Amino acid sequence: MSKPSLARGTRDFGPEQMAKRNFIFETVRRSFQRYGFLPLETPAFENLSVLMGKYGEEGDQLLFKILNSGDFTSKLSDKDYTDGYKPLTSKISEKGLRYDLTVPFARYVVMNRGTLAMPFKRYQIQPVWRADRPQRGRYREFYQCDADVVGTDSLLCEAEIVNLLHDILPALGITDFTVKINNRKVLTGIADVIGATGMEGPLCVAIDKLDKIGQEKVEEELAERGFSADSIQALNPIFSLSTTDNPFEGLKQWLSSSEIGLKGIAELEEVWKMVSLLGLENPKIQFDVTLARGLSYYTGAIFEVKANNVQIGSISGGGRYDNLTGTFGVPGISGVGISLGVDRIYDVMEELNLFPDSQATSTRVMISNFDKDAFEYGLTILPKLRQAGINAEMYPDSVKLKKQLDYADRKNIPFVILVGSDEIESGKLTLKNMITGEQQKLEIEEIVAILG
Amino acid sequence: MSKPSLARGTRDFGPEQMAKRNFIFETVRRSFQRYGFLPLETPAFENLSVLMGKYGEEGDQLLFKILNSGDFTSKLSDKDYTDGYKPLTSKISEKGLRYDLTVPFARYVVMNRGTLAMPFKRYQIQPVWRADRPQRGRYREFYQCDADVVGTDSLLCEAEIVNLLHDILPALGITDFTVKINNRKVLTGIADVIGATGMEGPLCVAIDKLDKIGQEKVEEELAERGFSADSIQALNPIFSLSTTDNPFEGLKQWLSSSEIGLKGIAELEEVWKMVSLLGLENPKIQFDVTLARGLSYYTGAIFEVKANNVQIGSISGGGRYDNLTGTFGVPGISGVGISLGVDRIYDVMEELNLFPDSQATSTRVMISNFDKDAFEYGLTILPKLRQAGINAEMYPDSVKLKKQLDYADRKNIPFVILVGSDEIESGKLTLKNMITGEQQKLEIEEIVAILG
Repeated sequence: MSKPSLARGTRDFGPEQMAKRNFIFETVRRSFQRYGFLPLETPAFENLSVLMGKYGEEGDQLLFKILNSGDFTSKLSDKDYTDGYKPLTSKISEKGLRYDLTVPFARYVVMNRGTLAMPFKRYQIQPVWRADRPQRGRYREFYQCDADVVGTDSLLCEAEIVNLLHDILPALGITDFTVKINNRKVLTGIADVIGATGMEGPLCVAIDKLDKIGQEKVEEELAERGFSADSIQALNPIFSLSTTDNPFEGLKQWLSSSEIGLKGIAELEEVWKMVSLLGLENPKIQFDVTLARGLSYYTGAIFEVKANNVQIGSISGGGRYDNLTGTFGVPGISGVGISLGVDRIYDVMEELNLFPDSQATSTRVMISNFDKDAFEYGLTILPKLRQAGINAEMYPDSVKLKKQLDYADRKNIPFVILVGSDEIESGKLTLKNMITGEQQKLEIEEIVAILG
Repeated sequence: MSKPSLARGTRDFGPEQMAKRNFIFETVRRSFQRYGFLPLETPAFENLSVLMGKYGEEGDQLLFKILNSGDFTSKLSDKDYTDGYKPLTSKISEKGLRYDLTVPFARYVVMNRGTLAMPFKRYQIQPVWRADRPQRGRYREFYQCDADVVGTDSLLCEAEIVNLLHDILPALGITDFTVKINNRKVLTGIADVIGATGMEGPLCVAIDKLDKIGQEKVEEELAERGFSADSIQALNPIFSLSTTDNPFEGLKQWLSSSEIGLKGIAELEEVWKMVSLLGLENPKIQFDVTLARGLSYYTGAIFEVKANNVQIGSISGGGRYDNLTGTFGVPGISGVGISLGVDRIYDVMEELNLFPDSQATSTRVMISNFDKDAFEYGLTILPKLRQAGINAEMYPDSVKLKKQLDYADRKNIPFVILVGSDEIESGKLTLKNMITGEQQKLEIEEIVAILG
């Protein structure tokens, strides 16, 4: 008889939220399809051998692990109990919950590469789970919407992602946004130029925080991570690089000694050109040399999308990876993808009041329930409404009309059909508009025509 | 560098299966909405205090339990290691994966009863997880599609479920099916009449197996469960009851000494009458006095839907429960619901070849990629197709045409636009029909008109 509660960091989505979330999912799905992406779903849990080691040590800790079924202690020795929880975990748990959609996708590609039509374009809209400390805006269960192309290194894919974002976001009503783009090769070039060749990993991790902690703290972090004072000093121009007029010109000069850096710039220029050919008017793209994104598997373009003038900024991110399947023994499959954060998009849309009023998925008309005769008469009307595709229901109990109308109100049902003895006799039903209060006497065919 | 595999009992759903599954989900969702049900989603995992004890001892064993995060051993004593795995489980695991959609729904109703518009009609389409031994047709992850009404004991809800099933199944193409109906009160009455008052629980469990094991084995099981030889003998007429002409007449006589049994019959008759008023032509309903369904929480109507003339029989089940929320301290909320098994419906539809050919969700046209000029020209065409709502993509690499057409073939793309120097000069593109092989020279506007 305990009072039930939700598990920490999880949420129920009631009808009103579901309608809004489904609007997002359907819009995203429709755009993904228009760009030739096909749907994929993978299981909620994977073998830990698939998941572990893919997200760094912190990620391993944040995986939800599933206890083996049955007597999981039967094969344990005394030593296992005293070795600490990490080795013990590997003996009593073989499975973990999906942490993102990218690693299961890579696993799927590796397992099905013999039959997949390459390049393979897939989208995937599913929840993921992370054992993070819950806080405002951070949940332990949340949806990701991913679209990826694997099996080609054509930069068309990068340009298509830019276009796709310009398709999805305005369809959601989000028109003021910026797609920030950089290239991991440029960051590698920067490491070369500042005399820190091979250190682009820690460079990315530190620079990625620029937005949040500012230049000074980034420089402190770089010093802590072993960058020399000279290197940090040499990095200085990067923070003040003008990217407005000709975004790449200045950097090209600066990177002229780094082959890979120049290749990164050339790739960016190619993407810029294709985006222009794809006919986007006023593309909302911005080269940001300080955009780094922490994930180590990116090797080419990196993306981040910000909604402007709202509290929550980043709503999407992605990039190109050249070796995601290498970890499963299949190297050489290049891919590029984008991930949309539904919860953040939801919050942005709430803040900007962008959700449409449409009630297409909820009940459009309710039939009242006065007494036995009216009830039985109402039953004969109900199928006529539904056959016309109108979402309809009948109030199930013969209670006071006020209570019935109150129910319709709370459920946002815009019309009620009132059936009484007059209506049964005349065949003219009373259609009540719940918003205006207006009532009309109509035949059922007329009502179907009005509501259909 | 391990070869990755799926966790046992789980499946990936690739593009082709997803298209079919989404057809089922969308059809079911559309019908649920037409009957006034609103969407709900609950988290994948719940506190074990919510889940444990709700599905019987076997169910408790079949719950997937999630290991507590961090050092789950820190508060364990030596004794905890030697007490056996069941008590240990409760100390190292607080959460479990959703086992069905009914208990989370009951939890939701209890937690939100202050704000829900009652009666509350919700549908829920989500996966559930069970640590069953995987076998053909039985998975550890599978979807359920549930619709329930709570907060009313009106038999209209039962009649509406019958109608809903007659809406959903034909929409899926399943026209040969039977909705078997019984009432738990009838089973209680039978227990009374055979002198086994209060033993309807074990009676139901045994009778429920009649289809699978036959009358003789059911009688053996009843004897094992403590039913007297007299009781078992008295039960005999039940197995041979004719339910064809007037399904209820004979049983009414037989149950005349049991008030609750007669109430069950009266409820069934009322449902039959409403179904008739709802205008169903040839309702595929059948009273089956031996339909019991094992779940102990049913108190009124019980349903089971069978697809006829296919290997897999049962595709849906449900019933009325009067005290589902009682376990969370809130008694007196009556409800009735139905659950559809997507995997079984999928298999039935495959067996009967019922999936439509529609490729609405996949790519409709691909633009070929000959060389740099054609590529750049193609880029300017792509947005025109998509703006007309046509799913379109461009082959990303300039490889041999055969390889490109092979890709289109394997992805079931019905049209390819061939762009070469002729096409660029004349502005007339070649539209190739991949099914007939036919080619036409057309302007882009004509192509949009044909494909749109």
